[in-house]
Amino acid sequence: MQGIRPVDVPTNRITDAVQRIDMRNTAYGLAARGEYGPVVQRHMQRTLPEKYPLSAAQKDMVDYLAAMAANPVAPQVAPIPADPEALARHMKAVCTFLKADAVGICRVPTYAYYKCDKQGNPIEPKYPNAIVFAMRKDWRTVRASTGRDWIGDPVSFQAYDHLALVAETVANYIRRLGWDASAQYGPSFVNRYSVLMPPLLLWAGLGEISRAGIVLSPTLGLGFKAAAVLTDMPLAPDKPIDFGLQRFCQECHICADNCPSHAIPRGDKILYNGYETWKLDTQRCASFNFTNAKGTMCNRCVKVCPWTAPATGCYGLVRRLATRSAVMRRVAIQAAPLLGLHESRPEEKWWFDLEYVGDTLQSRDANADARNAQ
Amino acid sequence: MQGIRPVDVPTNRITDAVQRIDMRNTAYGLAARGEYGPVVQRHMQRTLPEKYPLSAAQKDMVDYLAAMAANPVAPQVAPIPADPEALARHMKAVCTFLKADAVGICRVPTYAYYKCDKQGNPIEPKYPNAIVFAMRKDWRTVRASTGRDWIGDPVSFQAYDHLALVAETVANYIRRLGWDASAQYGPSFVNRYSVLMPPLLLWAGLGEISRAGIVLSPTLGLGFKAAAVLTDMPLAPDKPIDFGLQRFCQECHICADNCPSHAIPRGDKILYNGYETWKLDTQRCASFNFTNAKGTMCNRCVKVCPWTAPATGCYGLVRRLATRSAVMRRVAIQAAPLLGLHESRPEEKWWFDLEYVGDTLQSRDANADARNAQ
Repeated sequence: MQGIRPVDVPTNRITDAVQRIDMRNTAYGLAARGEYGPVVQRHMQRTLPEKYPLSAAQKDMVDYLAAMAANPVAPQVAPIPADPEALARHMKAVCTFLKADAVGICRVPTYAYYKCDKQGNPIEPKYPNAIVFAMRKDWRTVRASTGRDWIGDPVSFQAYDHLALVAETVANYIRRLGWDASAQYGPSFVNRYSVLMPPLLLWAGLGEISRAGIVLSPTLGLGFKAAAVLTDMPLAPDKPIDFGLQRFCQECHICADNCPSHAIPRGDKILYNGYETWKLDTQRCASFNFTNAKGTMCNRCVKVCPWTAPATGCYGLVRRLATRSAVMRRVAIQAAPLLGLHESRPEEKWWFDLEYVGDTLQSRDANADARNAQ
Repeated sequence: MQGIRPVDVPTNRITDAVQRIDMRNTAYGLAARGEYGPVVQRHMQRTLPEKYPLSAAQKDMVDYLAAMAANPVAPQVAPIPADPEALARHMKAVCTFLKADAVGICRVPTYAYYKCDKQGNPIEPKYPNAIVFAMRKDWRTVRASTGRDWIGDPVSFQAYDHLALVAETVANYIRRLGWDASAQYGPSFVNRYSVLMPPLLLWAGLGEISRAGIVLSPTLGLGFKAAAVLTDMPLAPDKPIDFGLQRFCQECHICADNCPSHAIPRGDKILYNGYETWKLDTQRCASFNFTNAKGTMCNRCVKVCPWTAPATGCYGLVRRLATRSAVMRRVAIQAAPLLGLHESRPEEKWWFDLEYVGDTLQSRDANADARNAQ
């Protein structure tokens, strides 16, 4: 894509001060052991997708996939070119063939590995390379949704489930070719992560850090989930990318202005755990999600970001210009709230509002009686 | 899509003489028990996808998914509209959301059920309705391939695996809503079919019967695989469709001319087991596939069919015209061989030519040494 420059290091500074993360101290871990207060902790007795029947079905699928045993690594390397460039091209083609919407390759920095798992067992950095790939969240559904209603988790799990299928397939294939490989995918409760995805996404050139505190892709915006396959297959890495997002997000506050929990900062990047980043208030974000009485996982920052809408027509043109000229960037940022991205489209809503109370589904649709009477 | 008319019955006649099929008498069954000769039978000791490492990895995934236990049917129906029209719209939206490329709904005719399974146990027609959906085979790969090389099975299994994931998700979801459901998907060796897909595809309006003896979709051509979810959820059915294919295939012979096993007839439709159809010589087709020394499953009819290429630009225009005017249809059919669909694109080939010999991979690439030396 035009306007995307390969660069030697990610556009947000990553210092030597980065500490590896203890998996017990993620938002889920902290909330579950009461550090976000007793109300949040009480809600942690079930996961968000289990509140809603479609995401509960999708959760069953990724739970099942995550329990799959790994096939053995073939004792001999396959008779294919040992050239890291050729193998990188091949593996990226495999991921694209399996319907990944974006793919890149990087070396795995040691700090990308978690320090220890949820039981406190140390995690040893093992694989030098990562194949990193992303899948788009369904834009029509995101657009129809308020971004904080019942379809939030189904939107995420559509990507999680497909990513799990593809990651397991790619890892299985690499092991058949004679190298070791480990499929890494979410959500976090399936315990298939030994690495954090954000640094891999940055180093593999899939995006830049955004004001929302997560990685933004130039082609998918915030509307994606990602997975990786770690491997010792020799692979030529891609480079990080610069498409002007640091300057864009510095001036744009649409995600912060629309965040229902006020978790996204309006100010400047800070240094946090050695990363230069806009720092999401994880406690606010997680507490809102876990106690949301009118939906599953909030996706509002994903929905309102002007990079998430498919880059067709007018959107594509404005975005291409915004990556090139400071003036056009300001015009785009001023115009973004006028696009109506913060609005839902009830006429395009295709799902039902339901919630499990115990094992029984109850309607959460205030208008259901009125509609049924029509 | 313009040019597609809903009709009351499929455009190929289906008579009262249709007999339900004994699963032991499919091409796989006949070949495995020696009815296609000892050479074919010997090749049946392993399945085609097991010859090649990528499709072997993909086969592991669908094998695993097919072993998933069904969740229980909720004891109470969910508090959602009981209107079959609304439920049909909802379920089609769910399938589209989960990335189905085409979806339709039909009543399940009794003759669509197999008569008995591979062990000879009778199969009882159980569910009144079917949600039928299709996923596209990757066109770039199909175009690059000869259609009879190593990538044939990976192309099919990319769709099979994703269809299995989606079918299991949809069936799980319906059971959570309080109705029974059964996920139906292939390939046949995972034993998840109790119905034949072709009559469901015809009745759900996803395509018409083609000269190649399989159903052709107006949007996907022959380049798709399909799955279904059978259910007792009340659903309003779609109608069969007519987009002029019976006249098109009557005059077009491109699939027959390009079939390496000469299994596709050049003549007229016949009555076969009560169906009016062009009758594929199943023994020739299957024998060629099972003994193919230079690839996995043949996809050549899929590749060369002028309906398979995405209907963009010129293709789309010609196809729209061909469905409306006999003159344009003849022009399109005359022009089709000039499009070069029968040619492969070696410069776009991204896969390696490999074959398992026992547990070891051997190169099947005659040019590998030459390329490595470059």
